[in-house]
Amino acid sequence: MLPTPKKFFVTAAAAEGHSCLNAFDNALLKARIGNVNLLRVSSILPPGAEFDPDLELPPGSLVPTAYGSIVSEVPGETISAAVGVGISEDTFGVIMEFSGKCTREEASKAIEKMLQEAFQVRGMKLVDMKIAAVEHTVEKVGCCLAAVPLWY
Amino acid sequence: MLPTPKKFFVTAAAAEGHSCLNAFDNALLKARIGNVNLLRVSSILPPGAEFDPDLELPPGSLVPTAYGSIVSEVPGETISAAVGVGISEDTFGVIMEFSGKCTREEASKAIEKMLQEAFQVRGMKLVDMKIAAVEHTVEKVGCCLAAVPLWY
Amino acid sequence: MLPTPKKFFVTAAAAEGHSCLNAFDNALLKARIGNVNLLRVSSILPPGAEFDPDLELPPGSLVPTAYGSIVSEVPGETISAAVGVGISEDTFGVIMEFSGKCTREEASKAIEKMLQEAFQVRGMKLVDMKIAAVEHTVEKVGCCLAAVPLWY
Repeated sequence: MLPTPKKFFVTAAAAEGHSCLNAFDNALLKARIGNVNLLRVSSILPPGAEFDPDLELPPGSLVPTAYGSIVSEVPGETISAAVGVGISEDTFGVIMEFSGKCTREEASKAIEKMLQEAFQVRGMKLVDMKIAAVEHTVEKVGCCLAAVPLWY
Repeated sequence: MLPTPKKFFVTAAAAEGHSCLNAFDNALLKARIGNVNLLRVSSILPPGAEFDPDLELPPGSLVPTAYGSIVSEVPGETISAAVGVGISEDTFGVIMEFSGKCTREEASKAIEKMLQEAFQVRGMKLVDMKIAAVEHTVEKVGCCLAAVPLWY
Repeated sequence: MLPTPKKFFVTAAAAEGHSCLNAFDNALLKARIGNVNLLRVSSILPPGAEFDPDLELPPGSLVPTAYGSIVSEVPGETISAAVGVGISEDTFGVIMEFSGKCTREEASKAIEKMLQEAFQVRGMKLVDMKIAAVEHTVEKVGCCLAAVPLWY
């Protein structure tokens, strides 16, 4: 089987770019995950995974990552992205991501509600949440990104 | 290289949720893949992979999975998702997924046609199909999901 | 951790199909990546990765791949996809993908600009670009695909 990740951090950033993909790339760079290969996952924190906010990822490595992002080409538009990790008492956690044309606070609130529902349906107790969120007013081509990179 | 999967099963489920992502999460739980990290793949059954409908996946593990899903926020709307594995005589197989605003039967028929075309263009004989499909009438926020998890 | 890829090639192809997913599948086959499981990545060429245009990928294997694709069901419409690998002097590279309703030349130009911006923001010198692009006029259901498979 593929090795199960053992560490994680949360990150969020916004950026402008000259194309949609460059705006996304620039947001990844600001979020400290621009020089790796994101493998998108949905969306469980493995049991025992440790929070390590200072993780440095080797360039080019394959990094399982739960993320949400939004790109807009409408100048003046407000966009946001948020991600949250719900921590359980003694087993796996749940990761939720959200992005939309809303404020950072609305995106964060949405994440909180989503995590609460995710734990409720699993009959698990939500003991902590780690949330990262970002808001951006588009100049030309803007991107908001929020991510939970999983690592080893 | 990454290890090639050796087992698979097919699954489909529908669920409601308070947000689009929660509806998706709830459908994953009903489909028995809600507590793992899906790595989306497109879409080949490795040679020799065995069908194992009772597979239990460790929470948080990285699970290569071919899947289709649809979320609707239109009450009363009928949505469906289907997935199919086309089995060959003695080599790899092909996986197809479909989702849309249609019935379960239409989704299944679509999958059958898609598999037949996939085998025809490869000049391979289609000896069996394993199909999972689900239909749902949306109450508030509904999701249909059909998936082929690959495992070791 | 997951093993970091060591080789790559670039490929692009277009195809028709009887469904959107079959058109995509047929384009993958023409691009020589139709019988593997693509794991979509975004989008860094690992340091030291070698260009190997004759790579043969084992059927069913998990292949980290950066790609862009577009499907159209509008007969007569022109669609294109392009992908580019920006090579640095002595470290990792950057991969960009693009698809749209435009010509092959426009898609290639877009990729060149995107790579230039990606290297500029990283303060890196772009010493070479490997670009693959394809254009297609839709008959019934058409797909253009451009991809950078990463391998070991």
